[in-house]
Amino acid sequence: MTEVVILEKKVLNENQRLAAELRERFARAGTLVVNLISSPGSGKTRLLERTLESLPAGVRAAVLTGDIQTDADATRLARFGFPVRQITTGGTCHLDAKMIDWHLEGWDLDALDILFIENVGNLVCPSSYDLGEEAKIVLLSVTEGEEKPLKYPSIFFKSKLILLTKIDLLPYVPFDYALACANARSVNAEADILGVSCQTDTGLREWMEWLGAKLPATELQPR
Amino acid sequence: MTEVVILEKKVLNENQRLAAELRERFARAGTLVVNLISSPGSGKTRLLERTLESLPAGVRAAVLTGDIQTDADATRLARFGFPVRQITTGGTCHLDAKMIDWHLEGWDLDALDILFIENVGNLVCPSSYDLGEEAKIVLLSVTEGEEKPLKYPSIFFKSKLILLTKIDLLPYVPFDYALACANARSVNAEADILGVSCQTDTGLREWMEWLGAKLPATELQPR
Repeated sequence: MTEVVILEKKVLNENQRLAAELRERFARAGTLVVNLISSPGSGKTRLLERTLESLPAGVRAAVLTGDIQTDADATRLARFGFPVRQITTGGTCHLDAKMIDWHLEGWDLDALDILFIENVGNLVCPSSYDLGEEAKIVLLSVTEGEEKPLKYPSIFFKSKLILLTKIDLLPYVPFDYALACANARSVNAEADILGVSCQTDTGLREWMEWLGAKLPATELQPR
Repeated sequence: MTEVVILEKKVLNENQRLAAELRERFARAGTLVVNLISSPGSGKTRLLERTLESLPAGVRAAVLTGDIQTDADATRLARFGFPVRQITTGGTCHLDAKMIDWHLEGWDLDALDILFIENVGNLVCPSSYDLGEEAKIVLLSVTEGEEKPLKYPSIFFKSKLILLTKIDLLPYVPFDYALACANARSVNAEADILGVSCQTDTGLREWMEWLGAKLPATELQPR
């Protein structure tokens, strides 16, 4: 099916071109953009809730959140007073640069310190689509199994941070934490790895510090 | 991007044609085929392990198991003495009918009562690809959240059985079981819904009975 491969390449090239434009716009505006990717239900929205409520006063944040259907996540995230827009893909399994471009319409990037992009819940397809972000961040819940970095290497390879989420559940699931880290390292020796729980707040300080280090103008400390 | 839509349609039409052929072959051979679909880490492989070891003597089963990378699942599943083949998609986010056709090569369907297909871990894309199965079965782990049927309606709509997995974790996660069932029902009023745990074996008898009812020649009861 060469026809499919050629067209895929064309779509990805066009996406890459637009992502490069977005990256330049974000850089000019001084907006840090992170792209959160994981399986459905690994805790992207919950992490964003905890993050938005922990941002120091004065940090100007916004969220674009993607889903196949529903605007449930935007509703959850809008409670924190930051601008939030839902991108409902209507069947498409990933966000692409064009969707980001469209949904930024009317937002003043110069007035944003950080833009969180929550991708569609899917550990496969979103890894192929550059959104102009500074960093992809992959979340892997400890309920999903420690072999996932080996089975889904692309997104682990491309991420600057690997978040092992729901670590409060470690006593109840057969998950070898050290092996998960070793598997992640074998795919990507450079990425940072943090364990977090939004139930117990374990690791959230380190997560905010990780973000803060990317945002030189501001010190991010949990309130 | 009409070009993309047209090509997608062409690919899906070609898949549908081949899936219809497969369905006819399975029917002629009297082979029950089920297609297990879920997010990564919802417990497809673990359920198949428990299923294979619970099959009554004399039931002739086989497994095709899909992953982007690694043959870890085939290795896990081969321990039970049934024929198992790994389909390593090398980046493709779903199984399609052609992959099934290829990997059946040399297997005598007349000698198979049941073929389990474990799809790539992905709650989105596999729902679009008919594999000639008698039933799609979607697994949703209780760690993933009760709103997932609304966010990923396609696969819940197309499944004959919805398995809520890892119910042993219910005391430790904020999951509203009744709401999850109501959400599933709102997308698909016809599907059966079962809760299972492969840690405590809760619900496994009902799961085996569900399979058994599709296999009239044999009574499937957990050993």
